[in-house]
Amino acid sequence: MKKVINNAEHVVDQMLDGLVSAHPDELKRLPDTTVIIRKDAPIKGKVGIVSGGGSGHEPAHAGFVGRGMLDAAVAGEVFTSPTPDQILEAIKAVDGGAGVLLVIKNYTGDVMNFEMAQEMAEMEGIQVASVVVNDDVAVEDSTFTIGRRGIAGTVFVHKVAGAKAEAGATLEEVKAVANQTIASVRSMGVALSSCTLPAAGKPSFTLAENEMEIGIGIHGEPGIERVALVSADEITTILLNKILAEIDEESSDVAVMVNGLGSTPEMELHIVNKKVAEVLRDKGMNVYRTWVGEYMTSLDMAGFSITILSLNEGLMELLVEDVKTVAFHV
Amino acid sequence: MKKVINNAEHVVDQMLDGLVSAHPDELKRLPDTTVIIRKDAPIKGKVGIVSGGGSGHEPAHAGFVGRGMLDAAVAGEVFTSPTPDQILEAIKAVDGGAGVLLVIKNYTGDVMNFEMAQEMAEMEGIQVASVVVNDDVAVEDSTFTIGRRGIAGTVFVHKVAGAKAEAGATLEEVKAVANQTIASVRSMGVALSSCTLPAAGKPSFTLAENEMEIGIGIHGEPGIERVALVSADEITTILLNKILAEIDEESSDVAVMVNGLGSTPEMELHIVNKKVAEVLRDKGMNVYRTWVGEYMTSLDMAGFSITILSLNEGLMELLVEDVKTVAFHV
Repeated sequence: MKKVINNAEHVVDQMLDGLVSAHPDELKRLPDTTVIIRKDAPIKGKVGIVSGGGSGHEPAHAGFVGRGMLDAAVAGEVFTSPTPDQILEAIKAVDGGAGVLLVIKNYTGDVMNFEMAQEMAEMEGIQVASVVVNDDVAVEDSTFTIGRRGIAGTVFVHKVAGAKAEAGATLEEVKAVANQTIASVRSMGVALSSCTLPAAGKPSFTLAENEMEIGIGIHGEPGIERVALVSADEITTILLNKILAEIDEESSDVAVMVNGLGSTPEMELHIVNKKVAEVLRDKGMNVYRTWVGEYMTSLDMAGFSITILSLNEGLMELLVEDVKTVAFHV
Repeated sequence: MKKVINNAEHVVDQMLDGLVSAHPDELKRLPDTTVIIRKDAPIKGKVGIVSGGGSGHEPAHAGFVGRGMLDAAVAGEVFTSPTPDQILEAIKAVDGGAGVLLVIKNYTGDVMNFEMAQEMAEMEGIQVASVVVNDDVAVEDSTFTIGRRGIAGTVFVHKVAGAKAEAGATLEEVKAVANQTIASVRSMGVALSSCTLPAAGKPSFTLAENEMEIGIGIHGEPGIERVALVSADEITTILLNKILAEIDEESSDVAVMVNGLGSTPEMELHIVNKKVAEVLRDKGMNVYRTWVGEYMTSLDMAGFSITILSLNEGLMELLVEDVKTVAFHV
């Protein structure tokens, strides 16, 4: 294993300190926790937005903390759900009296721990709601999931819900628009290589030199099939066909995310995006806005995912509303 | 070779189209060239800033085109200098009557071709100045370079010069502040793995499983030494010691960039930054602003570089002045 780390046990702790060191005016780490919050939280009268999950998906989730997006991100160990007590600390830290929305990616551990934290916070008199993102169209049920997995589309949910909350909406309204986004966003990924967890020291799985895995999860969970590596255009078409089958093409305005999984050069992501734009244009769809880069990674995995968000009523404005975070820009 | 491409010959062409597809309101590709310009260029009365170089360093250089930074970026083939005629097209496209500054990374081919373009443009009556960035403290002279190489510190030169030009300064003033930045910025990198050029199809060099190369160039040019991989803190200390030996510590305000070379997870870059912040604080230096991410990559190379910019008179304000690009944010 070749990694720039000090030791596997402390990667999350040291990463969080390094992140806050780089952004001391915007971010704060709650002492003795793995929670990163907006430095100005809690904001009185504003709904707080909390997300998080296992580490190893950077810049998710702490990179999305800031004005107009998340109020707090809770980091678990690598590929491991954060514990309920950590999530509870985040909820308490960002509640400004208007309640807190939890944005959960659909993994059994995450759902269980976030919901437990929700109950604990409610017992302390905080109003909490939660939504579960399940944008990955690749497979039903998976290694760590009942139903569909939550992947890069989660970032759009953060953005839309965050903008709505920033605009002064109620918890009920913020939850509604988060659920509207979840209903409108679909993603799928492909891997060319495995990733290596620091604590494991060796790749989670192996792919042959000419092989790719279509529909892989962001923790290396099995996808649909392992097939021979084909061209960027062909891979893109395979993913898009599966995604678009579930997107309402009547609403022809869409947002796109081409998300690198960790070690795929930006050059290749742009080559993918060229094809994405062509396919969507040929279908008469209007790409309103595109993000190309690393948003929801899987450590050093090679590969990418494509996300399409159907911009039905109101989502467009919230998606491009001003935002101030480390990793998401409009 | 596992890459998400269609064919090695068209990677640059398709990447540029993909990039512009994602940002059609801000960026434009000059027809039949590899030049990306601000869509609103030329801007009457403003000094134009042109940079560029071989491809494979994305987001450099087109990711830095936009208000307050570059007016144009010229892309060569992978790791190959752009040709003088392409650079000339960029100069002509962004000249708004106040002249054009060329920001060149110090590689023999780049310097030759940019200077040839400068002469051609001057013959057409355009006022052109140029600066050469040589921030890499690792080695004197190298595979493609007489003197020191230009690496990630170039991005700070883009930013400072771009902000100065945006504020309405003359070509002479913009050149002066670019040179002031060049004199104040030092960088050094380390690689844990080689990169693979699409056209070559195999890694440019090999490093053993326990080996790293200190002081490597962004094209895989030899560094100072190949040694056993050590901890993040130790690597960071090695790089910083060499860099800080050349930074005037009297001017204790600095900006920092921890730059991933392509396939190093963001988690590891933050772990490096934690140590960078500690070392600088212990030396009594004030880190005014930090950027952690991928800015000047080397395809899929694993590793990173550290850049320190000494913020002497006036640089601080220009560095954080508002900017609107794809890849650099303040």
